Amino acid sequence: MTQHYADRLAGAITVKGTPALVGLDPRFDSLPEPIRLRAIDGGGSECEIRARGFEEFCLRIIDVVSPLVPAVKPQVAFFEECGPAGMSALWRVIRAARERGLIVIADAKRGDIGSTAEGYARAWLAGADIDAAPWGADALTVNAYMGVDTLEPFITQANARGAGIYVLARTSNPGSAHFQSRMTEGESLYSAVARAVQQCASESLGECGYGAVGAVVGATYPAELAELRAAMPSVPLLVPGYGSQGGTSADVAAAFRADGQGAVINSSRGIIFAHSRAGYKERFAPEHWEQAVEAATLDMIADLRTHATPLDKEAD
Amino acid sequence: MTQHYADRLAGAITVKGTPALVGLDPRFDSLPEPIRLRAIDGGGSECEIRARGFEEFCLRIIDVVSPLVPAVKPQVAFFEECGPAGMSALWRVIRAARERGLIVIADAKRGDIGSTAEGYARAWLAGADIDAAPWGADALTVNAYMGVDTLEPFITQANARGAGIYVLARTSNPGSAHFQSRMTEGESLYSAVARAVQQCASESLGECGYGAVGAVVGATYPAELAELRAAMPSVPLLVPGYGSQGGTSADVAAAFRADGQGAVINSSRGIIFAHSRAGYKERFAPEHWEQAVEAATLDMIADLRTHATPLDKEAD
Repeated sequence: MTQHYADRLAGAITVKGTPALVGLDPRFDSLPEPIRLRAIDGGGSECEIRARGFEEFCLRIIDVVSPLVPAVKPQVAFFEECGPAGMSALWRVIRAARERGLIVIADAKRGDIGSTAEGYARAWLAGADIDAAPWGADALTVNAYMGVDTLEPFITQANARGAGIYVLARTSNPGSAHFQSRMTEGESLYSAVARAVQQCASESLGECGYGAVGAVVGATYPAELAELRAAMPSVPLLVPGYGSQGGTSADVAAAFRADGQGAVINSSRGIIFAHSRAGYKERFAPEHWEQAVEAATLDMIADLRTHATPLDKEAD
Repeated sequence: MTQHYADRLAGAITVKGTPALVGLDPRFDSLPEPIRLRAIDGGGSECEIRARGFEEFCLRIIDVVSPLVPAVKPQVAFFEECGPAGMSALWRVIRAARERGLIVIADAKRGDIGSTAEGYARAWLAGADIDAAPWGADALTVNAYMGVDTLEPFITQANARGAGIYVLARTSNPGSAHFQSRMTEGESLYSAVARAVQQCASESLGECGYGAVGAVVGATYPAELAELRAAMPSVPLLVPGYGSQGGTSADVAAAFRADGQGAVINSSRGIIFAHSRAGYKERFAPEHWEQAVEAATLDMIADLRTHATPLDKEAD
């Protein structure tokens, strides 16, 4: 039988001893210079050049972080921005990450109705067997504005494949309250979404006690993160907003249950572009940018441990 | 100066004399048999075979409908479901449609925060100059759950390029009321979205009096369609749900303003798979499937005219 997504994720978190998630958000101008120059040397259209740079960069990031963290989160938008060449690069990046044993959460924020939602589900949600869906992801971020019925095709595919989804609940951007925090029938909209997500998750739990239906809850609103952790006890959380967006390890502590499980904490720019960040660029020469990435990953892992959980003790 | 999206769209609607929009939603098992067989003969992976079939099918649909309608709407999910090969096919389909003078509305329902939303905007919104963005679309459907701030990068790109966006307001699926119709601070959530969309649209109107920020409002809820038309006088509507989903020409009549402009009405399966629909399959032999598509398009155009508008009179 296919292993449940939540159990696969919890196992990977335990093995690596950290819930740190590395976001793969490449931007061409921020790539290390040797990679940019090699990409340009390869010729072709601007899209092809950027895609080539993104691919080499992400493959090398994966080499650095795969021994350290349980999962990576490619941001599909940046690959899509390079047209078909970018999507081909993304495809290879996902395969490389999975071959290194990483859980891959495709951050695509997809969503549609009926058979179209089925199309997205079949496109992305490979789950335990990478070949079970074209893009080969373990999990996918989705948007539920269109209704709970639009989640069903994703949930069906997730349960069949040992894949997961993360439904946007409370996002980390400054304007996220505009709709998400509106009071509706005695609760906020994000609370209504959270209730629906908890219901969906609870219908098919893994042995670890979590469902395959997760939620995205930003680190930038810690009080709401605590509220949503309590409201969704069966729901694995994906927490963006740590690091560059301002969230701290104290802010994300509320995302975990008492067992130290229940959340992955994402950092993108803070890790992958460490070579140009204060505190790293002084210590690592430009050609040693991968050491800066490794140091930033280890620093994040250590920082998350300052709010220790039983998970840390088990893994140490 | 780049021509405003709303003016380009209104001009195309006037020239063709119809607001009919053909949805390109290919599914392999529904393709005409000769196209399926040729795709299989070409060999390769299952994804490559399906993508090849989708491409030939859509190119031939475009040949048939480009003299008749102002715009087509490729459904990105079905191409994405074929992996990188599908995305390359989509790229060529969009180019072919634009070379035939069609407005292309990419139905991708994208949305994200900050620089990631910028990535999607730059990926899709080419506007008047197809080469101004990798995917070459005139317009894109977007999801605003994350907040009005997440629309801004799309609007900026749209205004710069003569492109458009369509924000999901009230979708056509059975469960769309779950979140969209919840009462929130004295109005429904979809009304709150509509107010924000009207505000955004009104800030940059074309000469025709409409903005580049449109809304998706389903034909399957005619009362709400009328309500939303009134609430968003500056907003071009994209109306799905006509035909296979049950919406009639009477249902969509409320989408138009008194000038007969203001909306495009989408039909996907009802047109592109006419060769297997009752009323067409009896009249057209399988090898003449394109004639069935043409007949279904003309029938839709005539049906929409039964609720005549000044637009029809101008164009006749």
